[in-house]
Amino acid sequence: MKTYKDLSPSLRTIMTPGPVEVDPRVLRSMSYPILGQFDPEFTELMNETMEMLRDVFQTNNQWAFPIDGTSRSGIEAVLVSIIEPGDKVLVPIYGRFGHLLVEISERCGAEVAIIEQEWGTVFDPIDIVTAIEREKPTIVAMVHGETSTGCIQKLDGIGAACREVDALLVVDAVATIGGVPVKTDEWGLDAVIGGTQKCLSVPSGMSPITYNDRVEARVQRRKTIERGLREKGSPVAIGKTVASNYFDLGMLQDYWSPKRLNHHTEATTMLYALREGLRLVLQEGLEERFLRHKRHESALVAGLQAMGLTLFGDPLCKLPVVTCIRIPSGVDGEAVRSMLLNSFGIEIASSFGPLKGQIWRIGTMGFSCNQKNVLHVLGALEATLHWYGVDVSVGKALQAALAVYALDGEG
Amino acid sequence: MKTYKDLSPSLRTIMTPGPVEVDPRVLRSMSYPILGQFDPEFTELMNETMEMLRDVFQTNNQWAFPIDGTSRSGIEAVLVSIIEPGDKVLVPIYGRFGHLLVEISERCGAEVAIIEQEWGTVFDPIDIVTAIEREKPTIVAMVHGETSTGCIQKLDGIGAACREVDALLVVDAVATIGGVPVKTDEWGLDAVIGGTQKCLSVPSGMSPITYNDRVEARVQRRKTIERGLREKGSPVAIGKTVASNYFDLGMLQDYWSPKRLNHHTEATTMLYALREGLRLVLQEGLEERFLRHKRHESALVAGLQAMGLTLFGDPLCKLPVVTCIRIPSGVDGEAVRSMLLNSFGIEIASSFGPLKGQIWRIGTMGFSCNQKNVLHVLGALEATLHWYGVDVSVGKALQAALAVYALDGEG
Repeated sequence: MKTYKDLSPSLRTIMTPGPVEVDPRVLRSMSYPILGQFDPEFTELMNETMEMLRDVFQTNNQWAFPIDGTSRSGIEAVLVSIIEPGDKVLVPIYGRFGHLLVEISERCGAEVAIIEQEWGTVFDPIDIVTAIEREKPTIVAMVHGETSTGCIQKLDGIGAACREVDALLVVDAVATIGGVPVKTDEWGLDAVIGGTQKCLSVPSGMSPITYNDRVEARVQRRKTIERGLREKGSPVAIGKTVASNYFDLGMLQDYWSPKRLNHHTEATTMLYALREGLRLVLQEGLEERFLRHKRHESALVAGLQAMGLTLFGDPLCKLPVVTCIRIPSGVDGEAVRSMLLNSFGIEIASSFGPLKGQIWRIGTMGFSCNQKNVLHVLGALEATLHWYGVDVSVGKALQAALAVYALDGEG
Repeated sequence: MKTYKDLSPSLRTIMTPGPVEVDPRVLRSMSYPILGQFDPEFTELMNETMEMLRDVFQTNNQWAFPIDGTSRSGIEAVLVSIIEPGDKVLVPIYGRFGHLLVEISERCGAEVAIIEQEWGTVFDPIDIVTAIEREKPTIVAMVHGETSTGCIQKLDGIGAACREVDALLVVDAVATIGGVPVKTDEWGLDAVIGGTQKCLSVPSGMSPITYNDRVEARVQRRKTIERGLREKGSPVAIGKTVASNYFDLGMLQDYWSPKRLNHHTEATTMLYALREGLRLVLQEGLEERFLRHKRHESALVAGLQAMGLTLFGDPLCKLPVVTCIRIPSGVDGEAVRSMLLNSFGIEIASSFGPLKGQIWRIGTMGFSCNQKNVLHVLGALEATLHWYGVDVSVGKALQAALAVYALDGEG
């Protein structure tokens, strides 16, 4: 029989837009013995996680809990629970993850209307408001931070416009939660989906979500209609009931409420990790954490520009936690990434769709977002480009980054 | 701001039908630093996990990988990927989890036919074969081991009967995989869903599945039809395309194949845990592991009977990894469970539906299935019942269990 080696992963410097490095304190929490899912000690940990999620989502919503799956599971849980077949969903697209929202909505039976912006730019919020007034959708689904392009979409006024036409606003904040302000209540967001493996720096495998009473009412209405049909013995029309058991928010919230109605078996160890990750976020302080992300982004950008590299995307909408770099012409982007990985133990990301082969993407997220990592990636990228004979301004990148840190009182 | 305490879970003896205790080696693996999802070191771990899953499922299927969610996510992934609206699904029900198969199938738009057996019994396989011949379903979905009743269903001849009518046989082996033989290929099972948090003793949060080329053909046919409609610009009828992105086996297998088409971000740490858990299963040896489960079940049952307690369910179909006990009349089952937890640090399970308040359920699964735990739970249950004034034969349970172990050469 084939034997398998002891697990022994190399220690990487992970500078992608996720998954990123995990704080050792979070990793440690995952090595603790498990508790049963209805053990009072465990349900208390579930409750604490909900409380902390409310703080991180900046909301007073009752419902804030993780979906037990990776980030897109949270998106799907929200959409499948509120979309009824034939509902019109408006999706403003400015990168790959807008397309994911379209695809999930279509699979839920929605009629999808889209508006598009060129990759590397975002919408003027006015244009989204205009589209909402024109389309009068049931749901608006959009991405807050697009890791595919390194852009962040301002959400001003969109929540209010949705309420005017009684639409629900669903926001994919997978890339921004914990790294960039996400003001759920102040911005009038009805449902927000976060990711664990990016700025929260918890391993992939859970997706924290929050939603308000407008969303809950939509979910409960479907449940009531379904119950009524069943009581009459009428068949439940396909799509009228939530198409998923695993992602049915009505059932999930009964499990996360004091009722504790049995649904799935909560993912014990991932819950430990999320609780610990949130605890560290709140210990650091949200505002301090956002400033930290800005500081290291500034140093990274200063270094890249000093090297003579060009950033991709409109600087006015740059996402602070992802920096996209145009691959210099004639350079094999994948060869550079391989050398970074194999010689320096650094992972940076390639890109998708129209940007494939055009840009590299460097994340400065969560635990990976620190001075040591930023300086290591700048030094390594400079040396690698130099090795491949690219005309970079040798010796300037680290000086420029150090200058940013010195200004910031950290040098 | 509220502060949250350091994580410090109590050390429980978890004798439920899951989640159960996790081997410290698996817990340790979860504290290791993460790798990026396309890091060659990580994709190698994914490949090894697939290989080991094939061994544990006793199959030569190409496809054997985990769904990133809890056990029911694996069930839903299989069903949503193969059920087209209007398909007839036959579900033989003999406990709670049969009803879950019905519910998920209905949400996928299936017309569900059911046959039922009283809880605590199972079907004569002939009766299932007869129902298959009568109903001519597209899919037969059934539970192998019912944790709700502690019964195991023989699957003889059912795979062959399904092939006669071109039905796919989907088996929920969540409770049995790694504890009781599950012979995917020999029994002609087309898709099998396992659980991590039971006999594999990995925390909840992943669901390993396997499926054969008959299932793959069904999935690919849907993809082809959908692609054809899209190319013609025709709308894709609701339900014709797989209703889920997250659970679409066609996309998931592209991610788990050498193509590595990006889908979700694999749950890194859970994958470490599953790989380590499978490694330990294969190190122990499947046959040895099944014998271990039988041995500790025998000791537990001997002890319970010596105490004067009565088991629930037909002994001819007893699931070796779950033992159901009738709560003696006049005893508050929940008070006993609380005392076991609070005084002895032991968790046993209550029950569902028609059995609520009628039985306790004790699991002997995976890492929890050991002599120390069995003796501790017997001693604790005897003392607790005695404390509450129940007429138990004091002093006999441990002697009876020890006698089983002594016979087995382990005393």
